[in-house]
Amino acid sequence: MTTASLVTLDDIRAAAHRLRGAVVRTPLLPTDWSDPARPLWIKPESLQVIGAFKVRGALNAVGRIDAAVRSRGVVAYSSGNHAQAVAYAAATFGIDAHIVMPQETPDIKVRKTREHGAKVVLCGAGQREAVAAELVEQTGATLVPPFDHPDVIAGQGTAGLEIAEDMPEVANVLIPVSGGGLASGIGTAVKALCPQAQIFGVEPELAADTAAGLRAGHRVPMPIAERNRTIADGLRSEPSALTFAHLQRVLTDVLTVSEEEIRSAVRELAFKAHLVSEPSGAVALAAYRRHTLPPGPTVMVLSGGNVEPGMLREILAGPSAGAEHQGH
Amino acid sequence: MTTASLVTLDDIRAAAHRLRGAVVRTPLLPTDWSDPARPLWIKPESLQVIGAFKVRGALNAVGRIDAAVRSRGVVAYSSGNHAQAVAYAAATFGIDAHIVMPQETPDIKVRKTREHGAKVVLCGAGQREAVAAELVEQTGATLVPPFDHPDVIAGQGTAGLEIAEDMPEVANVLIPVSGGGLASGIGTAVKALCPQAQIFGVEPELAADTAAGLRAGHRVPMPIAERNRTIADGLRSEPSALTFAHLQRVLTDVLTVSEEEIRSAVRELAFKAHLVSEPSGAVALAAYRRHTLPPGPTVMVLSGGNVEPGMLREILAGPSAGAEHQGH
Repeated sequence: MTTASLVTLDDIRAAAHRLRGAVVRTPLLPTDWSDPARPLWIKPESLQVIGAFKVRGALNAVGRIDAAVRSRGVVAYSSGNHAQAVAYAAATFGIDAHIVMPQETPDIKVRKTREHGAKVVLCGAGQREAVAAELVEQTGATLVPPFDHPDVIAGQGTAGLEIAEDMPEVANVLIPVSGGGLASGIGTAVKALCPQAQIFGVEPELAADTAAGLRAGHRVPMPIAERNRTIADGLRSEPSALTFAHLQRVLTDVLTVSEEEIRSAVRELAFKAHLVSEPSGAVALAAYRRHTLPPGPTVMVLSGGNVEPGMLREILAGPSAGAEHQGH
Repeated sequence: MTTASLVTLDDIRAAAHRLRGAVVRTPLLPTDWSDPARPLWIKPESLQVIGAFKVRGALNAVGRIDAAVRSRGVVAYSSGNHAQAVAYAAATFGIDAHIVMPQETPDIKVRKTREHGAKVVLCGAGQREAVAAELVEQTGATLVPPFDHPDVIAGQGTAGLEIAEDMPEVANVLIPVSGGGLASGIGTAVKALCPQAQIFGVEPELAADTAAGLRAGHRVPMPIAERNRTIADGLRSEPSALTFAHLQRVLTDVLTVSEEEIRSAVRELAFKAHLVSEPSGAVALAAYRRHTLPPGPTVMVLSGGNVEPGMLREILAGPSAGAEHQGH
């Protein structure tokens, strides 16, 4: 992967221009309960209309498709926030969307995706890429990938422009890493505008493939059965060659956190910051609590809030007996 | 009360100038789960650093005190969000704050107020105004009232300026009413800039003194023992002559909601909008769900998020058996 293939600050600025008024310009929220040596601000992407940052990348990618091609619709495969993001983006542009979801996807996520007007196609385990390819073939629609695309990365990067604008003196930025689109985009924008900033990715210990990959200097695959153990269901993907190349360039390090630290961070965000986070969305706070960061103003990206009511209730109820040792 | 005594748009603009950079400029959050005939946006004042809008009025009121007088400190009495707001404002200006709180105030609120550097003075029931007056006498400090002051009303009104700026075409604005400072300020700003907007106050049925007062054309006192029955502990105050005069001028109506409707609104905000609300902060959504508003874009003010963890857990657990009939 050559440097020439990477997303640039200009790409991200063009995306920001495209998204203006279509996404929530989320504020940086100060906290009065953080370490005074590294005061913490929260970037609450959970407050986007679909409950997660994914709408930035989806709207930018759909907006970048040539209008004549775009009129034939879009296709995506996802069981998570990307499904709703592409459905929402398609509705914004008034085009069809087919979203391929695994049969075992929770009803609530299927329903939310349909509510945005998308056609949901359920499929068997491991079939979703083939089913999506077939839909593209049949309809002439364009596939919108969840992270492995420059337009998606540039869209996610718009959150980084906002961080740089609101806090040019930022010392540390903490970003969840799964497929790596969010950290690639934000990292690229912030490093370009605030060269003093350290960008940290955050992963669950149980899905720490990128942490291993950065140490090794190349991607280190981890079996999906292992990655599926984490409660942070949005952080079970692995970077592509494209996102990994960005992460190698912009990340200082990847910090890892335990399952119980993730649950504790969900509680702290609810009780102290008044924000509902999904487990994947809370990992940056878990990393802030566990690791000693360089001093200075610190921003954590709260990437999403789509947690099932039952799981939220269970997490807010507090640590279960012995759970402190889970995941260590 | 003559019109000349009321807070003006210019007062509120001056307050906004004073507060710039010192409070969170909260966004209007779109929802994808509201009535399409009256699409709902949320103004999340729960995301202010102390978890409630009160910091706006406190900072403006403290900022308006003559510097030589202000150096002698401030005094406030409150068991709620106003305590933290004045403590925070005093810390911002580097002056002393004495906050008088009832002995039965939950420890967590006493602790939060002390963490901002204020001196907390605990007192017996019904003693707080006398104790505060004595502190003012002893120290030469200035009393900052929770709502009965033009500078406080003007400060709260800055949230209304932001609503008008972000959505000049707004049709309905829903605002919780207790002492009436927030509704007076926001109503004044929005009516001045968006004359087509209808401003609705919202009260619990169990503390609907302002609804009764507006119908009667004068304030209708309600015994505190009755008002104390509502779970919405931030909505147990009554307007002063000053705030009532504003409310008469700017409110279309006061809508009332039941206790179970308030609890349901807290759940809906957590599960759909990813926002933790205190019961008082959620009443505007309860009114949106219960009453048929005029069609058009609708803004609800989520006034605060300071709910005890135990109460939040209990409310999120769902309606208790028979609780649907509570409060009707």
